[in-house]
Amino acid sequence: MSGKPIGVFDSGIGGLTVAKEIMELLPGESIVYLGDTARVPYGSKSPETITRYAFEGLNFLLSKDVKLVVIACNTVSATCLKELQENSNVPVIGVIDPGAKAAVRATREKKVGVIGTERTVKSGAYESAIKNMDGNIKILSKACPLFVPLVEEGWLDREATYLTIAEYLMPLKREGIDTLVLGCTHYPLLKPAISRVLGEGIKLVDCAKETAVVVKNTLEDSGLISRRIPAEGIIHKYYVTDNTEKFREIGEMFLKRKIEHIEKVRL
Amino acid sequence: MSGKPIGVFDSGIGGLTVAKEIMELLPGESIVYLGDTARVPYGSKSPETITRYAFEGLNFLLSKDVKLVVIACNTVSATCLKELQENSNVPVIGVIDPGAKAAVRATREKKVGVIGTERTVKSGAYESAIKNMDGNIKILSKACPLFVPLVEEGWLDREATYLTIAEYLMPLKREGIDTLVLGCTHYPLLKPAISRVLGEGIKLVDCAKETAVVVKNTLEDSGLISRRIPAEGIIHKYYVTDNTEKFREIGEMFLKRKIEHIEKVRL
Repeated sequence: MSGKPIGVFDSGIGGLTVAKEIMELLPGESIVYLGDTARVPYGSKSPETITRYAFEGLNFLLSKDVKLVVIACNTVSATCLKELQENSNVPVIGVIDPGAKAAVRATREKKVGVIGTERTVKSGAYESAIKNMDGNIKILSKACPLFVPLVEEGWLDREATYLTIAEYLMPLKREGIDTLVLGCTHYPLLKPAISRVLGEGIKLVDCAKETAVVVKNTLEDSGLISRRIPAEGIIHKYYVTDNTEKFREIGEMFLKRKIEHIEKVRL
Repeated sequence: MSGKPIGVFDSGIGGLTVAKEIMELLPGESIVYLGDTARVPYGSKSPETITRYAFEGLNFLLSKDVKLVVIACNTVSATCLKELQENSNVPVIGVIDPGAKAAVRATREKKVGVIGTERTVKSGAYESAIKNMDGNIKILSKACPLFVPLVEEGWLDREATYLTIAEYLMPLKREGIDTLVLGCTHYPLLKPAISRVLGEGIKLVDCAKETAVVVKNTLEDSGLISRRIPAEGIIHKYYVTDNTEKFREIGEMFLKRKIEHIEKVRL
């Protein structure tokens, strides 16, 4: 059982930031990644459509005999995590709770900003999670739908990017937040740009890193952690619903390593 | 036969710019609009996936007994128009040829710029169409993937928008284009901003307007044009694959009229 892979589901390519953190924290684990690139992005779609797509993704990963599933997509985690958990025979971990916990630990002024896709922000999932841990924290949310296309265009260090960041985030800074949750898997790539605009005083919470820690703890607690690296080495597999070339190209920028085993599938 | 509606297919909401021009030019015609909002955008997807989705859309419209189909989406028109035409028993009109013709008429220096999604630009469809009409025209293409999210965010008049436009288009201006084809249905909403950045000297070709003229001519040539307005008035119907509320909200901004009959369907 402990030799089985970890499944990671995302609407597209962004979940690779989560996969990367898991690979670094748990070098003995192999990953089966599924990116629904034919239907990406999910962030502006309705809860019903997102839920239908998410179940197709979960079932695909379960068919690959994974020991645990990570819902790397904030939008899916915010929309239907509980339903996915209730319909899975292996643990299902989302990215909201780990990010919320880190924010609660980080804030001193008890003023936290949360940014994400339209759907993630509308769901109020981070707010509920944070409020459940500390009812005194004030939360300011903002949907930033232009950040994902900016990252995918590779505009990580351009004037237009800095202006867009300022337009979205300066109002939150003026309100006095001291912590900002990057509630979308693409956003860690904008960390340097966001830091430059907001200055050093605001702590950025990267949900990918926090989620990897929860994955490690869950595997250890349930005795599912891999104790030895197989003789043939660790093999990560990537499945996508649209063509593999573009995923490979942008994906290697996210992952900072080669993507070797990749296959196009239909959900 | 002439009393049947015109079908308009788009990957999402942008095709409403084409629907709007048809409504204005042909006030006696009713429209059945299909927007595949659950899977939008198509522009960064592979030709195989786009073709599969386009056939599902075409077949849906044919099931609604339309007399003509307009492929309002540049990406689909650039990818598989011919295959759609060969598999339809009614005329199928794309947006590329009308736009290309207008560009050929407009250019004096014989230097034309073409902008669109990644897929439209990669397909070379505008280049081939323009070159077929006038082999002496030089064409400069540029994919502008940030324009669609800027329009959908409603950022039609912001500093970040002007900077993004300059970043994409000033190199084309420096190369001496005198005509620019707006090869994506969302782009007409950025016309004032693009004009401001490029100045008055460059003519912008709006494919939506040009396509409406081709629709009119085709209906007249084949005797399919509607000669009288029914007693109950003209009723336009809208079908979308994701939730109807968001489509209605943004759609009325595109259309500048009310969206009354709207229904969610599954392709």
